[in-house]
Amino acid sequence: MAENTTRTTYTVESLLAVTVEVFNERGYDGTSMEDLSKAAGISKSSIYHHVRGKEELLRLAVGRALDGLFTILDEPAARSGRPVDRLEHVVRRTAEVLLEELPYVTLLLRVRGNTPTEQWALERRREFDHQVAELLRAAVAEGELRSDVEPRLATRLLFGMINSIVEWYRPGVRAQDGIAEAVVHLAFDGLRAPTA
Amino acid sequence: MAENTTRTTYTVESLLAVTVEVFNERGYDGTSMEDLSKAAGISKSSIYHHVRGKEELLRLAVGRALDGLFTILDEPAARSGRPVDRLEHVVRRTAEVLLEELPYVTLLLRVRGNTPTEQWALERRREFDHQVAELLRAAVAEGELRSDVEPRLATRLLFGMINSIVEWYRPGVRAQDGIAEAVVHLAFDGLRAPTA
Repeated sequence: MAENTTRTTYTVESLLAVTVEVFNERGYDGTSMEDLSKAAGISKSSIYHHVRGKEELLRLAVGRALDGLFTILDEPAARSGRPVDRLEHVVRRTAEVLLEELPYVTLLLRVRGNTPTEQWALERRREFDHQVAELLRAAVAEGELRSDVEPRLATRLLFGMINSIVEWYRPGVRAQDGIAEAVVHLAFDGLRAPTA
Repeated sequence: MAENTTRTTYTVESLLAVTVEVFNERGYDGTSMEDLSKAAGISKSSIYHHVRGKEELLRLAVGRALDGLFTILDEPAARSGRPVDRLEHVVRRTAEVLLEELPYVTLLLRVRGNTPTEQWALERRREFDHQVAELLRAAVAEGELRSDVEPRLATRLLFGMINSIVEWYRPGVRAQDGIAEAVVHLAFDGLRAPTA
């Protein structure tokens, strides 16, 4: 009885939380509606009550990660000020959103496939990267960032560093406070101690 | 006939080159000896003439990547001098080895599993990371690197940046010359332009 009560409280959001864990563990292609039904402890028809199917769940899950990322670009600190400060804000917030929405961003970063939803997610990710690269270019043009590293390459290495956090970060294992700050330090000022 | 001639020229090295591509494409678990036989264009018994099986091929492939990485630590520039200079050498050379041995390092970075060979590869990777972290700690202790980023976190972000290169770098698409240098610039001095 208790279990049934739990079952009826499922919302799209709680279903999504389970789904994204299963997708990350088994891969999107390797996950069946049966797997999701088992993991959520509800029948397939109950899932279909909420969504049309697996691909809609993927769209909602990566959509959540993408919304988190694109929201950053609309924040006041990302929209006005010196390009270098705007970029610094975006880098810090990107790391923070990754940590806050870890399973969703992890899923987004693993999207590889050929379904329309996966194509759309890849396209949106490229658009985000592109906007950050433009900000980086603007900061180089202003002389705020060094010009001896190609902006496209710098953007790739920057995102490589940020995105790699999903490989080792586990919530609760360590406070996430220092991570975004460390990313900013390393990205903008490097590891070398300032010469006195 | 021509094909047969080609077949007889297979060496462990050329078999390994085919194997590593298949492992990277299908995953180690998802690859059968049948797949390898088809990809290499030789019979399974010919493969068994060279190696005992799939796991030995994995050991040889990740071993090649690991040998490349550990050799760096024995190079003179990694063994003597200021810790910061030794670390800089190791970071540059790690990026270079990754680019030179791209498919082998890619495979190494994807190892996750539970076979003894996979466990051994993970163990060796950790040992390499550990030795680099020690070098980083030594450079912080000497005051050559900033002390406000925790060494373990700094090492993770550093390798995150370097290892992410396998996600986008394709040989021939762009010269690899600038990449290792860009990694060193970003890691040690950051993106910010030096203030005049």
